[in-house]
Amino acid sequence: MQVPSPSVREAASMYGTAVAVFLVILVAALQGSAPPESPFPYHIPLDPEGTLELSWNVSYVQETVHFQLLVRDLKAGVLFGMSDRGELENADLVVLWTDGDSAYFGDAWSDQKGQIHLDSQQDYQLLRAQRTPEGLSLLFKRPFSTCDPKDYLIEDGTVHLVYGILEEPFWSLEAINTSGVQTGLQRVQLLKPNISIPALPSDMRTMEVRAPDVLIPGQETTYWCYITELPEGFPRHHIVMYEPVVTKGNEALVHHMEVFQCAAQFESFPRFSGPCDSKMKPDRLNYCRHVLAAWALGAQAFYYPEEAGLAFGGAGSSRFLRLEVHYHNPLKIKGRRDSSGIRLYYTATLRRFDAGIMELGLVYTPVMAIPPQEKAFVLTGYCTDKCTQLALPPSGIHIFASQLHTHLTGRKVVTVLARDGREREIVNRDDHYSPHFQEIRMLKKVVSVHPGDVLITSCTYNTEDRKLPTVGGFGILEEMCVNYVHYYPQTQLELCKSAVDPGFLQKYFHLVNRFNAEEVCTCPQASVPEQFAAVPWNSFSRQVLGALYSFAPISMHCNKSSAVRFQGEWNLQPLPEIISKLEEPTPQCPASRGQSPTGPTVVSIGGGKG
Amino acid sequence: MQVPSPSVREAASMYGTAVAVFLVILVAALQGSAPPESPFPYHIPLDPEGTLELSWNVSYVQETVHFQLLVRDLKAGVLFGMSDRGELENADLVVLWTDGDSAYFGDAWSDQKGQIHLDSQQDYQLLRAQRTPEGLSLLFKRPFSTCDPKDYLIEDGTVHLVYGILEEPFWSLEAINTSGVQTGLQRVQLLKPNISIPALPSDMRTMEVRAPDVLIPGQETTYWCYITELPEGFPRHHIVMYEPVVTKGNEALVHHMEVFQCAAQFESFPRFSGPCDSKMKPDRLNYCRHVLAAWALGAQAFYYPEEAGLAFGGAGSSRFLRLEVHYHNPLKIKGRRDSSGIRLYYTATLRRFDAGIMELGLVYTPVMAIPPQEKAFVLTGYCTDKCTQLALPPSGIHIFASQLHTHLTGRKVVTVLARDGREREIVNRDDHYSPHFQEIRMLKKVVSVHPGDVLITSCTYNTEDRKLPTVGGFGILEEMCVNYVHYYPQTQLELCKSAVDPGFLQKYFHLVNRFNAEEVCTCPQASVPEQFAAVPWNSFSRQVLGALYSFAPISMHCNKSSAVRFQGEWNLQPLPEIISKLEEPTPQCPASRGQSPTGPTVVSIGGGKG
Repeated sequence: MQVPSPSVREAASMYGTAVAVFLVILVAALQGSAPPESPFPYHIPLDPEGTLELSWNVSYVQETVHFQLLVRDLKAGVLFGMSDRGELENADLVVLWTDGDSAYFGDAWSDQKGQIHLDSQQDYQLLRAQRTPEGLSLLFKRPFSTCDPKDYLIEDGTVHLVYGILEEPFWSLEAINTSGVQTGLQRVQLLKPNISIPALPSDMRTMEVRAPDVLIPGQETTYWCYITELPEGFPRHHIVMYEPVVTKGNEALVHHMEVFQCAAQFESFPRFSGPCDSKMKPDRLNYCRHVLAAWALGAQAFYYPEEAGLAFGGAGSSRFLRLEVHYHNPLKIKGRRDSSGIRLYYTATLRRFDAGIMELGLVYTPVMAIPPQEKAFVLTGYCTDKCTQLALPPSGIHIFASQLHTHLTGRKVVTVLARDGREREIVNRDDHYSPHFQEIRMLKKVVSVHPGDVLITSCTYNTEDRKLPTVGGFGILEEMCVNYVHYYPQTQLELCKSAVDPGFLQKYFHLVNRFNAEEVCTCPQASVPEQFAAVPWNSFSRQVLGALYSFAPISMHCNKSSAVRFQGEWNLQPLPEIISKLEEPTPQCPASRGQSPTGPTVVSIGGGKG
Repeated sequence: MQVPSPSVREAASMYGTAVAVFLVILVAALQGSAPPESPFPYHIPLDPEGTLELSWNVSYVQETVHFQLLVRDLKAGVLFGMSDRGELENADLVVLWTDGDSAYFGDAWSDQKGQIHLDSQQDYQLLRAQRTPEGLSLLFKRPFSTCDPKDYLIEDGTVHLVYGILEEPFWSLEAINTSGVQTGLQRVQLLKPNISIPALPSDMRTMEVRAPDVLIPGQETTYWCYITELPEGFPRHHIVMYEPVVTKGNEALVHHMEVFQCAAQFESFPRFSGPCDSKMKPDRLNYCRHVLAAWALGAQAFYYPEEAGLAFGGAGSSRFLRLEVHYHNPLKIKGRRDSSGIRLYYTATLRRFDAGIMELGLVYTPVMAIPPQEKAFVLTGYCTDKCTQLALPPSGIHIFASQLHTHLTGRKVVTVLARDGREREIVNRDDHYSPHFQEIRMLKKVVSVHPGDVLITSCTYNTEDRKLPTVGGFGILEEMCVNYVHYYPQTQLELCKSAVDPGFLQKYFHLVNRFNAEEVCTCPQASVPEQFAAVPWNSFSRQVLGALYSFAPISMHCNKSSAVRFQGEWNLQPLPEIISKLEEPTPQCPASRGQSPTGPTVVSIGGGKG
């Protein structure tokens, strides 16, 4: 443990006005303090050029993340940090900057105008600064939670990393405003689950589903679609793991990739390789939607649990696969070729259980709508006890992974499991969800669902940029609230979703009409989207819509496939009653706070390996 | 600044499991660190016997409270602290305890079961422990805000202090549960305003309005009523200050006192001295309700601003005064005599302005109701721009004090001033309001209200212990939401309050009926309380009532006296539109945290003055 001498401590306590007195700790001294024992399993490029590369590891015991930031071609400094949704304002930052003479490293924050301030509490702790052949390597650590209100709380789910490249010296930290700096964001799941790799079968084989040497278009966003097929007569196998194969040099361009299986109802599918929105794309490709594998930037290999595998091949399933690659090319680089894809690892020795995918959340129907100009409107979909009672085996199912899904206005998604009216555990939660970052995530803890359990999926939407209400539906400007849960053993239950009873929604339109002088069209020939569009959106109509959704009976989809319901009465079902909610965890403050410096650290980056 | 040596710091960092290793700092060392320069202007007995006596001062510069706790007749230790509403569970505590050998002082907290735990962050800092002839005197300090989620945030308004008396040694802190200890609570305004005393007139005289040697009844609660009168021909004077006169020895029994002036409409009032709820009390005493002075436990002298005084005496005002004394006697002590009261300081040289009292908030009407079983239901009353435009002088009025008022279910009260649709400042706020502690509080900052300004008063109610709805009204089981603001110069506006439009409330009853199979009586002969009593209270009817109150037009009382309105149309007024709200202040964490010990302190209390 590093103990500064009293005189240094006194100097530190004199630190009052910003950047007035510096606590001088040399790099040599820094190296003495706890370098991370473990390597850095996770890597991600931050900027499109790959100038900044982040590696990290997570210690759940210490509740700390160690970061290693590689800065190639260092100019006058860098910003790195986190913020709620990737904005550079109100961000929690570390700053490496120079005043021309010395270089400094400090824990800082930006205010709502992007102005940077030194943090009164230094929670990012620099452990090493070192020149390497590739560039400057900074090693620092941060507890998940610091109890400093200016700091970001590192939680499960998506984290929006932000960065900035300082091109010139600043005489002080307070002189930096993020608006004048080249900045950007990168989304990542920082708190990766700590999962031990299951035993893999000895007869495991691999198959690569890769783009056929695609010329990446020189535009910001491209979804590339490519159809390929399994060999004729390919028998039933179990996929036991898969991993990304990214063409070297394209790491910052390949944003996410998915492999879909096509529908078995069609004998064959036309060959295609081109942008998914191309007019040349055959319509039939819309029937290739059954997810086999999905990867997004920063994700690693995906392993199925030892007892289960995802079936593919064999009779009753299509031989055709669709690969979708999202190229994110904000610098509009031209002429780059790519053959990225996903490598499937599969076995002919079928495992004990088939894995399945179940859809939880809201039915795709306009009766579930979000008023315009809402900051955080919540819609909730239920998988009721009646449905799980009917459809799940007596020993239950085990959810091991989850992929959250909304369209453009989604901001948070959570699924909670309830039993006997009490919320028991979180299945998956993302309080910083982004529709631009939908990966399949392994759960930190497998969640078992028994017959009679209830699964409640809530999505929070932001429609501040919309003038008209947003209704549920398939369109990109309509909304969804879905959690695709990956589980075993597979059951017939493919869909367990709900929507408000349409009759109660009509009562809502009627009462809005009664309370407002303006006209709301409640005539039977008007469609629900038309009725919503006619609502005068004031505090009353907004709040009463929320009250309706949290009170009115629901219509359940408890389905074997998207069209076939389990037998039973599924209309006008009562909302599941929840008598006790899960408590929000209070973040623990790190116990020993005294060791951190109270001001920025002078960094010696002139030398070689120190 | 006290700097522990590295070896002590290392010992501290080894402190892991509770009460395993102690940071040994002797009392002598403690005395070196910053004894408070200022004396303790505020005092309050904590328990009914007066065994524990608290003195304190407030530094707004350091954002710190210094406490001096006198423990008479020390047994094995004491608990002292704060909690949301005076409960001993989830409380923020300091504990002085002994294991039989040594005595320890530590910052602790109690969980929801009352079990005590050592705090990982020691924010109460012991400065001195000293035996005095009266008992053990403990001097310690606490920042207003610590950023430790286990700590209470010291805010403006009521603070619920809690205490406990340990009768026997405990082998460890964790062995203490508050449920097995003699405990209690005391309400106080900890953060007293730092007001400089205005110049007082040279011809100032005093008058004591005191109970006539009352024999305090041996019951927990007594409101004593006593009628007295001003001398005949007593001319118009200005009260410029007043202070409590509490009979020595009764400090813990006299809870609050108020002096009221009787109504001028009656020539005379009968003499009376007895309990206010006595059947012998003449009915006419109900006409003595105009507040002249009010004091509650822990409050100090009340000063009018230098430019203003409260008029009393002279033509047009009654000579009769009513003193009300609330005796709080939980130990049911018998035979105690009391002559407490209030000493008025007044001058014949009238000051420039008469002070006035204006009533803000809700009209006393059943249309404003709180559903049963609500944890925090908010009702809001408005003083609209239209009323202030009409009734206030062009230069505005200046509010210098405020008395908040609700009945039994009130938990929070706040009045906000808005101008041009924007909230500008808080007039008064109490997030830990108790109906059992209603004192007139000087504002920290005088608030000026101009014609066209809006005053918004919101009360939060808890009806978890009620089975039926609580409607607005005068009854003790009905509710009020009032802020009596003390201001100058006096205007004709005595009442600026609102309530929901009754027609819109009828629409509410109608729609609740539509959404529920059960019957809601909307027949015209049913009274509003009857209609509320018939509502089936589910999430929909609750939320829609809230939505109605935050949307429906209001009926304004913009009155010269309780019965005389200013001229104008006051029905079906639009709710004031608020386009920007005041931001909640983020609590600042104390900058230098490193100096605090990380474990309990061994206290030497054997010696004399040390």
